[in-house]
Amino acid sequence: MSEAASQGRGAAARARLLEAALYAFATRGFHGTGTRDIAQGAGMSPAAVYVHHRSKEDLLFALSEAAHQDVQVVVIAADDPGATPAVRLRAVVREYTAWHARRHTHARVAQYEMEALSADHRAEIVRIRRAIDDRVRGIIDAGVADGSFAVDSTRLATVAVLSLGIDVARWYRDDGTWSPDEIGEHYSQLALGLVRCTRDLT
Amino acid sequence: MSEAASQGRGAAARARLLEAALYAFATRGFHGTGTRDIAQGAGMSPAAVYVHHRSKEDLLFALSEAAHQDVQVVVIAADDPGATPAVRLRAVVREYTAWHARRHTHARVAQYEMEALSADHRAEIVRIRRAIDDRVRGIIDAGVADGSFAVDSTRLATVAVLSLGIDVARWYRDDGTWSPDEIGEHYSQLALGLVRCTRDLT
Repeated sequence: MSEAASQGRGAAARARLLEAALYAFATRGFHGTGTRDIAQGAGMSPAAVYVHHRSKEDLLFALSEAAHQDVQVVVIAADDPGATPAVRLRAVVREYTAWHARRHTHARVAQYEMEALSADHRAEIVRIRRAIDDRVRGIIDAGVADGSFAVDSTRLATVAVLSLGIDVARWYRDDGTWSPDEIGEHYSQLALGLVRCTRDLT
Repeated sequence: MSEAASQGRGAAARARLLEAALYAFATRGFHGTGTRDIAQGAGMSPAAVYVHHRSKEDLLFALSEAAHQDVQVVVIAADDPGATPAVRLRAVVREYTAWHARRHTHARVAQYEMEALSADHRAEIVRIRRAIDDRVRGIIDAGVADGSFAVDSTRLATVAVLSLGIDVARWYRDDGTWSPDEIGEHYSQLALGLVRCTRDLT
């Protein structure tokens, strides 16, 4: 087998293990999942897990990092810093919330298993979370500064807006009433209400 | 030992097992917890668990039912159906949210382990959840009807208001910046913004 083909097979095996780990963590929790469950889900031997990932925690970190980086990319792509705070908040909440509906399984594992990460890995994830928080808080700060928003605590309003999106991953069902985009659209309106946006979006 | 003394000891043992189960489920998840862990946490033998509870799932149901009933009592106590929708929503959100901060460990187990309940037990819990949802939805409906609130979807606004409170249990820390009552107070204001309450509370 050529080196390129071998690398390709390695990448495919890693991806299959990640998918199996995601399903297992979502169903039985991190502590309720054995490497045996993950191997079985990926159709591999338990030993094969360690060829591709150092540990079960390493798999959790890879999943958590991918989820958080993905959210960060979605937020950056949705945000136009040249637009008004209302337009910015609406676009960011819409995409952030829709992501948590669309990717609810991945989001739940990333959000609910933070405590199972090693200290170093948790610090890495917290760094990404902080960047997302800072951007949303910057938008709300800008809205308060130009008089289009009115909140008692910018920090708590930021927590609430992000929290609304995150909790969609708990209650969203693929066969439910609303699509991810519909929830994103509704929630972006609710978020403007939450910050008492008084200025027209146009 | 008299019958009364024996019953008292039985109740004390059940309470110790529930507390140990709550701690174990919160730390390692339902599927990551063995009856051995629960027995050890309660300072009892694994066999003793089955003297007092039929199964691990039975312990989870007891914890979940207690949490949900407690929330229902808090909501009913906070709500004065004779008051205006704004006053009602503010009081209910304040107490509902403060409860989820104060009892965050219990709330997390009750919210995140719903899937681990038996079908019958889950139906019982869903019945209580529906009663809480219906009451909050009734308040928002009343506000829309009398023109003090303006939302596109009463149902989704209800989901959002309750979701905000539930997600506090995920991020709340006992050593954090805000007390449960402060979070309840802030969130009750944010909820009035979210439903675009236009009428004064007085």
